[in-house]
Amino acid sequence: MPSPAPLARRLVAEFIGTGLLVAIVVGSGIAASRLSPEDIGLQLLENSTATTLGLAMLIAVLAPLSGAHFNPVVSLADWWMSRRSSQPGFAARAIAPYAVAQVLGAIGGALLANAMFNIPAAISATERATPATFLAEIVATAGLVLVIFSLVRSGNARMIPAAVGAYVGAAYWSTSSTSFANPAVTIGRIFTDTFAGIALASAVPFLAAQLLGGVIGVLLVSYLYPVVAAAPEVAITKAATEVVK
Amino acid sequence: MPSPAPLARRLVAEFIGTGLLVAIVVGSGIAASRLSPEDIGLQLLENSTATTLGLAMLIAVLAPLSGAHFNPVVSLADWWMSRRSSQPGFAARAIAPYAVAQVLGAIGGALLANAMFNIPAAISATERATPATFLAEIVATAGLVLVIFSLVRSGNARMIPAAVGAYVGAAYWSTSSTSFANPAVTIGRIFTDTFAGIALASAVPFLAAQLLGGVIGVLLVSYLYPVVAAAPEVAITKAATEVVK
Amino acid sequence: MPSPAPLARRLVAEFIGTGLLVAIVVGSGIAASRLSPEDIGLQLLENSTATTLGLAMLIAVLAPLSGAHFNPVVSLADWWMSRRSSQPGFAARAIAPYAVAQVLGAIGGALLANAMFNIPAAISATERATPATFLAEIVATAGLVLVIFSLVRSGNARMIPAAVGAYVGAAYWSTSSTSFANPAVTIGRIFTDTFAGIALASAVPFLAAQLLGGVIGVLLVSYLYPVVAAAPEVAITKAATEVVK
Amino acid sequence: MPSPAPLARRLVAEFIGTGLLVAIVVGSGIAASRLSPEDIGLQLLENSTATTLGLAMLIAVLAPLSGAHFNPVVSLADWWMSRRSSQPGFAARAIAPYAVAQVLGAIGGALLANAMFNIPAAISATERATPATFLAEIVATAGLVLVIFSLVRSGNARMIPAAVGAYVGAAYWSTSSTSFANPAVTIGRIFTDTFAGIALASAVPFLAAQLLGGVIGVLLVSYLYPVVAAAPEVAITKAATEVVK
Repeated sequence: MPSPAPLARRLVAEFIGTGLLVAIVVGSGIAASRLSPEDIGLQLLENSTATTLGLAMLIAVLAPLSGAHFNPVVSLADWWMSRRSSQPGFAARAIAPYAVAQVLGAIGGALLANAMFNIPAAISATERATPATFLAEIVATAGLVLVIFSLVRSGNARMIPAAVGAYVGAAYWSTSSTSFANPAVTIGRIFTDTFAGIALASAVPFLAAQLLGGVIGVLLVSYLYPVVAAAPEVAITKAATEVVK
Repeated sequence: MPSPAPLARRLVAEFIGTGLLVAIVVGSGIAASRLSPEDIGLQLLENSTATTLGLAMLIAVLAPLSGAHFNPVVSLADWWMSRRSSQPGFAARAIAPYAVAQVLGAIGGALLANAMFNIPAAISATERATPATFLAEIVATAGLVLVIFSLVRSGNARMIPAAVGAYVGAAYWSTSSTSFANPAVTIGRIFTDTFAGIALASAVPFLAAQLLGGVIGVLLVSYLYPVVAAAPEVAITKAATEVVK
Repeated sequence: MPSPAPLARRLVAEFIGTGLLVAIVVGSGIAASRLSPEDIGLQLLENSTATTLGLAMLIAVLAPLSGAHFNPVVSLADWWMSRRSSQPGFAARAIAPYAVAQVLGAIGGALLANAMFNIPAAISATERATPATFLAEIVATAGLVLVIFSLVRSGNARMIPAAVGAYVGAAYWSTSSTSFANPAVTIGRIFTDTFAGIALASAVPFLAAQLLGGVIGVLLVSYLYPVVAAAPEVAITKAATEVVK
Repeated sequence: MPSPAPLARRLVAEFIGTGLLVAIVVGSGIAASRLSPEDIGLQLLENSTATTLGLAMLIAVLAPLSGAHFNPVVSLADWWMSRRSSQPGFAARAIAPYAVAQVLGAIGGALLANAMFNIPAAISATERATPATFLAEIVATAGLVLVIFSLVRSGNARMIPAAVGAYVGAAYWSTSSTSFANPAVTIGRIFTDTFAGIALASAVPFLAAQLLGGVIGVLLVSYLYPVVAAAPEVAITKAATEVVK
């Protein structure tokens, strides 16, 4: 269901949502590495738990307004998958503004987290790119697209907040890259030299892997769910409305 | 939807709900610091997990009666945001009694937690105020108001229990202040010299930051969701009711 | 809504449900103390996480059949609170059979957990009774009754599985007794000399505190929610049914 | 509700779903054992948390297409329990193809996890079979079948994703075998010599126990829920549809 809100307001929603997402990822990473210095696994558990809860919550809050993409790959996939729909979908001309708002929000979120923990601004020195993490980012992003658009196409979009939160919580642990799976968030995480940071040289292959994963995800959804199911709720509302006419 | 219950009963609900919330925050903090003495991060994970679960549960239980504010900033924002609504909203004259019930409940909850762990009553000596935690409390409270009233205005109020629980679970970790975000709870936590306590001198700037954050949150919601959407459930009930007339 | 199933089948449901609940509490306690020998808090986190998930799941599975009480205090409260309802409620003559099934299930669950971990049967030697834990059990049981019957009376019974699971997860950490809050489970936990066990001498005051807490919980609910609200779902179904007549 | 999708597409869904499930189990086990080398309990908590979230999410995503069995015992039970239903159920001729897709997916998932963490392919050397774990696998699989088909028969199938995720999260900790409860996943986990692996010699008795547990689970459900309740949602949709005719 496309939002009836003006584009400017939807862009502010994407800016705030992506910003708070990165502030949660980076901020909880800083807190975890300070408070649990002895065990990196425990740090990651604290970091992934905060992100699981935070992402699910942010999607629930902002999806009615902007769709709560927070991710250029999701915006691209949303446009592609709705372009032949009989219903109005996500417009091609909104992709670039969405991506800009997401990237700016992500950078702002990293800087906000640094400020909340009194950490000076710095570019990350954490190298993460290896063949294994490149594969991991492909899988992680394909999976994310599979989750979101399978739920859209099977008429279960109301499950997206919890399912995407759960997906990211599982993917943090199941991949060697800890599942960035999001170009905007990847760029934002360049701007903090803390637990969740990523060096610029590693961000570039991560972005490539994410785009490739997004294409694979779209192909999977297109095969598995070739048509869009009507959501049961919508059916009820429509029926009840016609009754009272 | 304003509660049809008498004010006295709603005040008891706010007293009990805020009291149990603080008993959970303080009690789980005491248990965590006793049982996991080696790792402060693990203590915070135990504390934040209990609070996430407990807060979501308390809102589900008491929202039908009092709205489950448990927080003077939320009561103020509820009044402000519903004051021009065509439907009856939260009345200005209920704000002060709600705040008193919340503060008394919070103090009672701290004392109850102390009693359940056989800890003598004492005022907290934990200083928490710094420029970084001041900023963190502004962000945390603005985010809390954004979550609650975005869900109200988008017709998704049924998601508030889970979303607010998840918000607090994420905010514990993403902010340097561990996200008090609640003047009543802040005052209650003065009355325990344990893991979750806060010294009086730190409580004052925390309260100021929370009020400022509340204003920012209200402005954000007013921009993002300027009108109130009808909840789908309510629409169905209403339609079905008219049908059978 | 009283179950239309025969009493024998409902008793089997209570036996299995209480049995699996105790098997989860005791079994996860054994695994936690074996696998995390260095940190008692981490053991309790593992134990409470398993119990939160397991209890919510068991209630969802068996509530349509027996009400999923798993707890004599809940059975007593259910009878008391529905005794003057215009709809058929939980019958007084079912209380004793329910309690017997729950206690036998709880003992069986403790023995099953021991067997699954190859631990010889033995009576627990863990003393837990103090004035502080006595108070904690009163609060924990009153809170449990408050949660369950507030949700029943406000027409939100569909939230009970998640809310009761969350309640127990929070109460484990917020009380000095780790919140037994259940006479059947308390008796069952006498029959295992492991992490979750309780000595007979401590079980007796725990049972007294739980009964007292149950009474307080019933009084609280009776004050806060004096009447039963119609569940929205039921209202819809009823309306739609009448329409098609 | 049987899926209208062609069998080939449903088999791809089972292949992908079981594959991602095993990739999550194996991958998070590798990450946990690398990052938390000091505490096996913490490793299992990280592993079980990822699996709880991942399994719930995968069921939500793929259930509308294939039923999201991911498990030959579930496919067998689904056929058996729906064979005399008046509605079309899971066909006997689909069992073998489903099982093949599940086993191949599970092996593929183990290999994918190895590749994402740059671990050479190897057969597991982890012996797990003892009389205690044999009993545990019986109980774990019976419980899994009890959960799934009780929810189906009581008209609460929409709760299956969350309930099955929660079940596995609890069962990981409550059983000495960590609850494989799935022949396909057991076979897949032979193909990784890491935290979650199982030696071939142990897999054979695990498979036997799982089949036995499946039979017990079917008997329990057949006794507890002898008839299928109509799902409330379906009832509403049907009623509303007839109204507008």
